[in-house]
This record gives sequence, structure tokens and C-alpha cells, in this order.
Amino acid sequence: MGTRLYLYDTTLRDGQQTQGVQFSTAEKLRIAKALDDLGLDYIEGGWPGANPTDSAFFDEIPPTRAVMTAFGMTKRAGRSAGNDDVLSAVLNAGTPAVCLVGKTHDFHVTAALGIDLSENVDNIRASVAHIVAQGREALFDAEHFFDGWKANAPYALECLKAAYDAGARWIVLCDTNGGTLPHEVYRIVQKVITGGIPGENLGIHTHNDTENAVACSLAAVDAGVRQVQGTLNGLGERCGNANLTSLIPTLLLKEPYASACDIGVGKDALEGLTQISRMLDEVLNRVPMRQAPYVGSSAFAHKAGLHASAILKDPTTYEHVDPGTVGNRRVIPMSNQAGQSNLRRRLAEAGLEVAPGDPALARILDEIKTREAQGYTYDTAQASFELLARGGLGRLPDFFEVKRYRVTVERRRNKYDRMVSLSEAVVVVKVAGEKKLSVSDSLDTEGHDRGPVNALSKALSKDLGPYQPVIDDMRLVDFKVRITQGGTEAVTRVIIDSQDGKGRRWQTVGVSANIVDASFEALLDAVRWKLIRDCGEAG
Amino acid sequence: MGTRLYLYDTTLRDGQQTQGVQFSTAEKLRIAKALDDLGLDYIEGGWPGANPTDSAFFDEIPPTRAVMTAFGMTKRAGRSAGNDDVLSAVLNAGTPAVCLVGKTHDFHVTAALGIDLSENVDNIRASVAHIVAQGREALFDAEHFFDGWKANAPYALECLKAAYDAGARWIVLCDTNGGTLPHEVYRIVQKVITGGIPGENLGIHTHNDTENAVACSLAAVDAGVRQVQGTLNGLGERCGNANLTSLIPTLLLKEPYASACDIGVGKDALEGLTQISRMLDEVLNRVPMRQAPYVGSSAFAHKAGLHASAILKDPTTYEHVDPGTVGNRRVIPMSNQAGQSNLRRRLAEAGLEVAPGDPALARILDEIKTREAQGYTYDTAQASFELLARGGLGRLPDFFEVKRYRVTVERRRNKYDRMVSLSEAVVVVKVAGEKKLSVSDSLDTEGHDRGPVNALSKALSKDLGPYQPVIDDMRLVDFKVRITQGGTEAVTRVIIDSQDGKGRRWQTVGVSANIVDASFEALLDAVRWKLIRDCGEAG
Repeated sequence: MGTRLYLYDTTLRDGQQTQGVQFSTAEKLRIAKALDDLGLDYIEGGWPGANPTDSAFFDEIPPTRAVMTAFGMTKRAGRSAGNDDVLSAVLNAGTPAVCLVGKTHDFHVTAALGIDLSENVDNIRASVAHIVAQGREALFDAEHFFDGWKANAPYALECLKAAYDAGARWIVLCDTNGGTLPHEVYRIVQKVITGGIPGENLGIHTHNDTENAVACSLAAVDAGVRQVQGTLNGLGERCGNANLTSLIPTLLLKEPYASACDIGVGKDALEGLTQISRMLDEVLNRVPMRQAPYVGSSAFAHKAGLHASAILKDPTTYEHVDPGTVGNRRVIPMSNQAGQSNLRRRLAEAGLEVAPGDPALARILDEIKTREAQGYTYDTAQASFELLARGGLGRLPDFFEVKRYRVTVERRRNKYDRMVSLSEAVVVVKVAGEKKLSVSDSLDTEGHDRGPVNALSKALSKDLGPYQPVIDDMRLVDFKVRITQGGTEAVTRVIIDSQDGKGRRWQTVGVSANIVDASFEALLDAVRWKLIRDCGEAG
Repeated sequence: MGTRLYLYDTTLRDGQQTQGVQFSTAEKLRIAKALDDLGLDYIEGGWPGANPTDSAFFDEIPPTRAVMTAFGMTKRAGRSAGNDDVLSAVLNAGTPAVCLVGKTHDFHVTAALGIDLSENVDNIRASVAHIVAQGREALFDAEHFFDGWKANAPYALECLKAAYDAGARWIVLCDTNGGTLPHEVYRIVQKVITGGIPGENLGIHTHNDTENAVACSLAAVDAGVRQVQGTLNGLGERCGNANLTSLIPTLLLKEPYASACDIGVGKDALEGLTQISRMLDEVLNRVPMRQAPYVGSSAFAHKAGLHASAILKDPTTYEHVDPGTVGNRRVIPMSNQAGQSNLRRRLAEAGLEVAPGDPALARILDEIKTREAQGYTYDTAQASFELLARGGLGRLPDFFEVKRYRVTVERRRNKYDRMVSLSEAVVVVKVAGEKKLSVSDSLDTEGHDRGPVNALSKALSKDLGPYQPVIDDMRLVDFKVRITQGGTEAVTRVIIDSQDGKGRRWQTVGVSANIVDASFEALLDAVRWKLIRDCGEAG
């Protein structure tokens, strides 16, 4: 066992400072569960009282193995910690740990807070003492610490000591503006430790403004800190926080950390890292960054001819770690050698046993490659993957055939002279030898227009003849749209989540330059998958 | 004057190994010119003979201030350097400098090349000597050097010495697999220098597989190397190369480099960095990474309420460098935390001066809050923000009125019995007292269906009467869709990027449960904003 190194996640708080990111409470709960399962030591859930979403999160979060932490700031001047309503709101969240940010840079104390330097030190001490007196674990986030140290080291250290002496379990050194370089972090952390704050009580919180957030975190660990803060996928204010998705595998797999340190994340959990990273992008409806270290779809893609041929002889020739350790996979363009065993495993998951070497495997891989180039993705759309594979295996029943469809979207004035929109869909299918023509509008039970996909979905599932009882309990529960190429050549990928009365939930995908047509394709796959499940292969 | 540090760009060679990237010759010429203007010392143009694009590039490139460099590999075993056709093709490009990659890791010599260790050393020596004998500047790219050093340091050093003794101007230490950490790079570079290769002849070439490529490059400079290799926007094989777009401002603006080093890029040229980075994304038809250090659109965006209010007092409170130094700008996103001073500042950016305390400010903030609750976001959709504000200020001209629209999406069999989809849009507007009815389909110039939004966009901009000349140079350049609530109550947010012939680019937003209607709203805003810019407030 090496030295225990603690991982502190702030995806739900600092990560939410990313431009364009606004988690719902349900999304926060989902992310928190993933972080807890991964083995993070601390989860910073948000700032209770600052907004209704964060407050609701702390009310709803079930018990976690990780130490749930509420974020807030040190008490303001001119009132006691017990009488500070902002601080009270943070404590009222009832978390076992509380992290308070406070100033340590003299310039900020006078310029931003407009108070005396000594008053600020008093505020830090009193706030931390108040948290500790309530029986909570206290963390002190030393804002602008590195800039503060460069400007006035004795004062910056005095602030840290006030928090430490008041009982803070952790003193977190923050490079708030993200401008400090790794060699500076290393040097300053060493001085803080010789200045009297033990490394086992120090944390590091960096930002990526010079693209060095990960390196600064490692430099701080090298110098002796024992807590590392960061976010999944490097979310965060401006250029983001230190990326835990990169730091975790480095700390677990690479020397000297692999031998010298012990982190809460195990090697089994590490195999879920790629999936967690993709899940977060899915929540944010972002295109995952292909070049992301460890977890990106290009992270183990070997494009250069020399590299690809060497990789086939021995993967270690051009890979720094085995892609499987982080749940990622090797991509070798021009070769599908690697794919077949993977494919057989995935087919087995769908109940399709195929013998090794079956020529259908190569055909299916080719089809997947072609479709992925068009913008399809089968990472999550397992139901569409199964239908594609069944096609390649000759095991896809022809339940019905769509002859044509038409959807109209209109906006015009209604009889009250208000502009309203409405969609209407007509779907023509041939089922059991009979042509069926169904029509539906896009209005929900309250008379609100839900758009063309809703109208299509209702028309498609209105009359499928003998299959109608089987699909009556199906409903569309989620709908995601992503533009897979920028610019005028944009192609739209639609992913649809469906659910049925038996509690099954399945995902299908459609791709087209026409967003309605892409949606229709995904809807069709959803219906077909359901029919296979409930009617069997015989149709 | 500090120590001269040389910058070597490999965007056109290693950058082209990025998955999905394939430059045309014209694109390579355009990028090379930008690199030359920026002040790079070396431009690696490609591998002559390896593909027709690279060969054409070297034929067509005009003289550059930067040293143009051709890339290739050391001669193969069993032939002389003069008789190696691959090497000859590289020399035939006629560049003043030639960079040859060769093995320095014993395992690769035996496993990948399958030759004796001494034979490899001979190949390196003979190849470099051949380049030098031709009067060219020779660079030796020591592939897998750091892994090689860890496996067999004396052999790795022997390879470097063979190249150095044969007259190579530069010995470039490559971390080919990207797995080496900064502290290791620092330590090994120091040992290479004490081992006999002067720092003034050493270069560093890193990859971002642990998100440390920039830090590894800086560590190598700290240890004494004098050439740094990288790519614009961190393009490159797998997770990319060291990102010059991050390294250049760090070397130029931050200590100790700002005082101790002298690089070819001047402070004036640095102000073009953001533009060059965006130009490259435009060439690649990629959406620029918002969180990119220094040049991303979020790099100086201050979302947190505490940050935003401090920034208004003094920008240095939350910025590590002035955004103007790299040609970027500060963004204070409109959020429900932001107050009136923020709003006034953002209005001023749109040319709208409003006195403090004007009651319109509170109205506008309320409207923003209401709309954000509905799913709108004004973080990036500055044009829609401006229109909303103009509405609140009574300064939004009525250029035209949309009376109604209708879009049809159909899928049916065409005369060749193939299923095809097609959209058709009719838009009715009242402009200058006259009713105009326009229709358009969704087919692009090649006859492909681009979907209902495309058809609507074309119909809307087909006949706006007197305003038609103003909008003729507008085009839709990006289109993003996000579902802002999961489930059946999903609301769709569409963000559209438009561009005009003057090079302006602006973003607008639309929200509706009906995806087509949300798109139409964003399209309308785009046209209105353009009319205000080019026709003024009077309409």
C-alpha cells in the first residue's frame, strides 16, 4: 500500500461554470452516482442556497460512499459565522463535509472584498471553526493562492494557517486564474509544507488556462499534497479544471504514482472510465472529444501506416497503456482484424450466438464501418446495432414495410389571431398484406404542439394490424439530436430512447441530413426491436 | 535578448495524422503562409513521395522566411543512402532542411525493423551524413527516445551520437507514444546533455496521451533543449501533438520564459493567434473548441457570479493574461446571476449605450430570466441577445412580418423505385406593405435533400423585397440542436451560426417543443440581426 491520495470531484460545482452547461437536478444525481461508483473520495455537489437546482440536489441525493460536500464561501465581514445567512444555507444542506472558499491574495482582499487583511484572516478562522463546531469535516479553498503567494507569501501563508489552526481537514491550494506553471506549483507547495502545513492536509485545485492543469496537479502531488481536485472531462470555468479523466488513469497506471500512491479508484472501476466520460457528454449533448487522452475515440487510433503495421506485430510499440484498462478500444483504420472477437461478444449480449470465423462477422464489421463514417454511432444504440447485425445474419424478420410518409409543419394565426404551430403526419405501411394509412397531429393532451417527430411517432404506432397490441405499451421517453459535421454539410444524428410496459428501455439511432427523416429511421428501429422482443424472430 | 528558442511546426505532417484530417495542397499552402506570418522558425511540410498532396505542396510552396523542412525516414538496411529511393524522394523536394525519423529504442530496432542494433546506428549515421553532404540542414527525429532511454540508455544515446557526429544540426527527442510524464522528460533531457549532446542541438517532440504534452515540452526547455516541436490546435496522431497554440503565448508572456528566452514570434504577431487557430478549424470544418487555452471563445469567459462582478472592478482579478495579447476577448455571459452592470457592458458591446438605472435594464433582465427558464441561452447567442435587448429598449425596427409558413417532409419511392426524402417550405412575409410568398425545396446543388430547416432558410431569404440585396451574402454555417428537458416534455433549443460576405459571424437561438419551429425562430433572428447591421435602426 502506498501513500493514500484523495480524489475530490467538482464536476457538479466548478464543472457547472463551463459556458453553456446547466445541469438539471436529475442530471446531477445521475453524474453523482457515476462518480460514486467510480470510487471518488469526495463529491462536491454544488452551492446550496445559490440556486434551486443545487438545493434540490442535496435534498434528493441518496447516501453515497464518497464524502458528499457542499460548497460555499467564508462568512462576510461584520457578522458572526452563525449569523451569516449564506453560510447557514450551506450548512443546512446537511453534508458530512463543507468546503469554503476564501481569499488568500492580499490584492483581492482589498480590491474585491474591500476589507482589512486581518479582518479576512478572522473571517477564515471563524468560518472554519464554525463548520468544525457543527461536527462537519471542513475544507478551505484558498482562492488565488499561487498568485497570492507570489505577491505576498507571508500573508498567503497566514490565511492558510488560520484555516488549518481552526481545524480544517484540508487546505486546498487553488490556482484560480489558471496561470501558474508546473515548476512554480512544485516550488510553492514545497515552501508551504516547510512553512508549517503538512502535505497530508493539502489539496490542489488547478485550471487549464495554459493547458497545464493536469501537469500542475501532478507537480503538486510530487511536492507532497494528498488531495487532487478536478472534474470529469475537464469541465469548468473558462478553459476548465484539471481533468480527472486524464489524472485518474495516470495516477493508477503510471510510475511513480502506481507504486507510491493508493487512490480510491480500483482497476476494475477504471475500466468504466470511457463509458462515464461518454455518459457525461451525452448528458451535456456534446460531441465527445475524439482526441481526449485515454477515453477519446482517437486515443488509441493508429493512422500512420508505420504505426498501424507495428501495432499488429505488438500493440506496445505505439501504445503507452492498454486501451482496455480504461474501457477504451484500439482503432486501426484499414484493418478489421481486431474487431471480430469484440463483435461476437456484443452479439452474444443480444442473444445472437455466432461461431468464430463466420463470414457474416466481416460483413457486419464492414457495414458498421460504413455507417460510422456516415455519422451513425452504436456505442449506446444497442437496439439499432442488434437490428443491423440481424440484417447481416439474415435473422431480421419483415414485420411490416413503410411505403411512404409525409409530415407538415405549419405556423399561422389561429382564430384568436395568435401565431400557433402545428404538425401533422401521415404514414402508410403494408402489414400482413394490407395497406394501412394512419394520420396523427402533434398535439399533446393539453393541446400543445410537440412537433413533427411526435406526430410521426403517433402515426407510425397507430395501426400496425396484428402487431398493434404489442406496441401499444411503447412510448418515446427521450430524444437527442446531434449535428455530426459542422457547416452546410451537416448531418443530423438522432438517438431515441423508448420504453415499454415491461420496464424495458432501448436506444435506436437514425442519421440523415434531414432531421425529420433521421428521427423517422430511429422510430422505425425502435418499433422493430420491440416486435422482435415480443413476437420473436418468426414475426 | 534571452536564449534563442526555436519553434518547429509539424501541423502539415504529424497534424495530418489526426483521425479525420486530410489536407488538400491548397489548404496546406494556406496554413503554411499563416505559420510563416506568425513567425515559426521551421515548417515541416510533409513527407515528399509518400503521397501526391505532400509532393505537390513542396512543388508549389513559395519562398518562406521559415526554414521549410521535408520529413522522411533514415535509409533502410541493405542499401546506401544515395540508393534509397524513399530518401531520394525526400531530398528531391529541394528543401533547405530535412528531418529524418529513426529508431533509438532497442526493442523497436529488433521487433519492428528486424535488424541488428549496430546496423540501425550505421543507418542513422549514413543517412544524416548524406543529407549534410547535399548541403542541407539535417534534423534527426529520435523516435520512441524516452521509452528507449528507459529500456537501454546507452544504446539510445549511441543512436543520438551517431546522428550528432554525422553533422545533424538538431537531435529531436520524441516521446512517440506520449506516455512519458514531465518529471521524466526533465530528468532524461538533463542526462542526455551531460551525456554529450549540447542543449543547443536538442529538440523536443511530445504527444498528448496523458494530457501533458505542453508540460513535457516546457520541462524539456527547463532542462535545456532549444527547439520545441508541435502543431497548431494540438492536431496530431491519437491525442495530438504538443499544442503550439498554447505553448507560444506561454513562452512569450510567462516567466521565466518571457525574460530568459527569445522566440521568433513577436508580440504583434501573437495578436493574430486566435484568428489563426480559428482559420485552421475553418479549413478542417470543425467547431472551434470553446475551452481551448488562450484562443477558445470561453478562455476569457467569466460565468461565476463572484468572478464576473470582480472582473468588472479589475480584469486582472480573474485573468492570467490580457485576452487582447492573443487576439481573444473577454466574455461575461448573460446569466441569471448577472446584474445590471454586466448587462450595460454587454449592451455597449452591441453599440447600445444605456444610462445606469434606466428602467429598461430591469425589464430586459426579467425577460432574459423568463426566457432562460424556457430553455433559451444567451451565453453565446449574442445576436439574439441584442434583438431581445433592442425590443426592451424600443429600438427594434419592424423590417418585415412573417404571416405564416409551412414545411412538408416526405419520404416516398421515386421513379427509380428508390426511397427518397424531400422537404419543401413556403414562407409568407409582409415587407414594405407588400405580401411576398416564397417557396423552396431542400435540395442542394448536387440534388441531395438537406432537410426542412434548409428549405425554410432558403424560402425565408428568397424575397425580402428592398432588403434582399442585404441578405444575399448571408449563409447558414452551423446548426446545433439540444433537447433541454428529457422525456416527452422535451423542449428543443436550436442555435444557428450565420456568416456574411464581410466575414461577420453571429449566433442566434430559438426554442420550441417543435424542432422546426425552434429553427425558424433562430433563422428569423439571424436575418433581423443582419438587417440591423447593414440597414441601421431606421429600417
